[in-house]
Amino acid sequence: VILTVTPNPALDVTYTVDRLVLHASHRVSALREMAGGKGLNVTSVLAQRGIPVLATGPVGGQAGARLVADLDARDIAHELVPTSGETRRTVTVVSEADGEATAFNEQGVELSPHEWSLLLSAVARLLDTYRPQVLVASGSVPDGFPADGYAQLVEVGHAAGCRVIVDASREALLGSLAARPDVVKPNRHELVEATGEQYPVAGARALQAMGARQVVASLGEDGLLLVDASGHVVRAALAEPLRGNPTGAGDAAVAAIAAGLSDGLDWETVLADAVAWSAAAVLQPVAGQGEDDDITRLRAGVRVWRD
Amino acid sequence: VILTVTPNPALDVTYTVDRLVLHASHRVSALREMAGGKGLNVTSVLAQRGIPVLATGPVGGQAGARLVADLDARDIAHELVPTSGETRRTVTVVSEADGEATAFNEQGVELSPHEWSLLLSAVARLLDTYRPQVLVASGSVPDGFPADGYAQLVEVGHAAGCRVIVDASREALLGSLAARPDVVKPNRHELVEATGEQYPVAGARALQAMGARQVVASLGEDGLLLVDASGHVVRAALAEPLRGNPTGAGDAAVAAIAAGLSDGLDWETVLADAVAWSAAAVLQPVAGQGEDDDITRLRAGVRVWRD
Repeated sequence: VILTVTPNPALDVTYTVDRLVLHASHRVSALREMAGGKGLNVTSVLAQRGIPVLATGPVGGQAGARLVADLDARDIAHELVPTSGETRRTVTVVSEADGEATAFNEQGVELSPHEWSLLLSAVARLLDTYRPQVLVASGSVPDGFPADGYAQLVEVGHAAGCRVIVDASREALLGSLAARPDVVKPNRHELVEATGEQYPVAGARALQAMGARQVVASLGEDGLLLVDASGHVVRAALAEPLRGNPTGAGDAAVAAIAAGLSDGLDWETVLADAVAWSAAAVLQPVAGQGEDDDITRLRAGVRVWRD
Repeated sequence: VILTVTPNPALDVTYTVDRLVLHASHRVSALREMAGGKGLNVTSVLAQRGIPVLATGPVGGQAGARLVADLDARDIAHELVPTSGETRRTVTVVSEADGEATAFNEQGVELSPHEWSLLLSAVARLLDTYRPQVLVASGSVPDGFPADGYAQLVEVGHAAGCRVIVDASREALLGSLAARPDVVKPNRHELVEATGEQYPVAGARALQAMGARQVVASLGEDGLLLVDASGHVVRAALAEPLRGNPTGAGDAAVAAIAAGLSDGLDWETVLADAVAWSAAAVLQPVAGQGEDDDITRLRAGVRVWRD
């Protein structure tokens, strides 16, 4: 089983409008609510692929109850930690005229030190109970999340014999590195932001110098870049770029990496899968999705090469 | 006391972002939740002016509970009718860079015939218990609201000896007219939409031909236009137009008209007050507000004239 930790879950609300116009008033023609936050998107992708996965993270209030209801409706296993603060919402407005999405992300309420320690012990308990091969810790962090919070998660994961994947940005990413996460997965922008390096390979090597064992950078249309533990560079990409909704593409890549590590696949296979899962997510209107048929078709068109 | 009926209340959520950019992802820097829907905005303005007011309407679910909590926090009297469906939300995104607002209005869930009859009997009971001088029925209507729903409200109001003000649009406005509402308050766009007349005076006379006793049209920067029961035309406007957030300006005008009718003021005074209350609302970032100082200052600059 794969265990996912989402420190800052969200109730993802999608509003469909005819055409989004600045400074206008819009009638919402369709409304959809789903469990969100990057770790729960990863969970959702894995569950949809039929891969055993269990989710944890803090949830609270009425939005939290609806997030749980969505997970239950989709038969996604979870052991969430109740918090006093209400789970944040994200509102994504999809403009039907052009298919484009505009997103508004609430920050969420502060996690108290007590709530953080409850979350960390819940993770330790779940690692002990379910013995996952892979722990995924993913997404933005709420106020009150310790600077080394992701490092603490990596440490409890390693102590339980797990490989640990961290998908975070800025201080949260940097704060994870001292604990030597097995994989970090920044995107191009996050890599520049965290390291100051303009070139992805240089950025990935900088993260390795700070402690990351392996770095997979998601580069949009340019696919994925791996710098492995020996410093070798492997790339994977679609032969032709795809149009669609990039939200959740990175989470689908993380899901594929988690599945690949869990199954002991070689990195070239893992990267090719990750590109295909990611591309299938681009074809979906909301994060955390991807059709099997799309994955099979897209997988056949993935190129993998060494620099 | 003034009784307000809001057939389609909303939890108004305001998101502040640095700058709203189409197709981008935004961090919400401030979040505010308030009771909304046009009738509740009218209620809020009256309560802020210290005028006795009581609100009714259907509310349900978690958003409904938060709407009620906001009314309670602001000491606004209400006797709301519980419904099975969840109260809708509206999300207004305020872009700090330019102060402009972009709104997304959920439609809300259907009102069942049983819930409509509960609402109508609640209104009849409140009229009987509190003997208001004025009934305000205001705003959009949910699915399931009868075509003559506003007419039924006008009838129960008249039966209890109330003057009734209807602020509605399209079919809901047209459906009210047979019951001869004392005042209807369309804006320029709603007047054209309901009557097909391009000129406000012609539109107002068309509504009177269909049953409205008096029509006050809100014309934005051109102020207010009254066509009274004798067919005379009175206008009121600020000497200079005001910049700001027009959301809720019409509701503030309705509040002033309700207060004026309740106090038996002459129409010229009512219109001048309505322009000042409306203008004070334009200076506020959210609907249902207006500062006393602004009203006093703006009131001095209102011109009232007969065509």
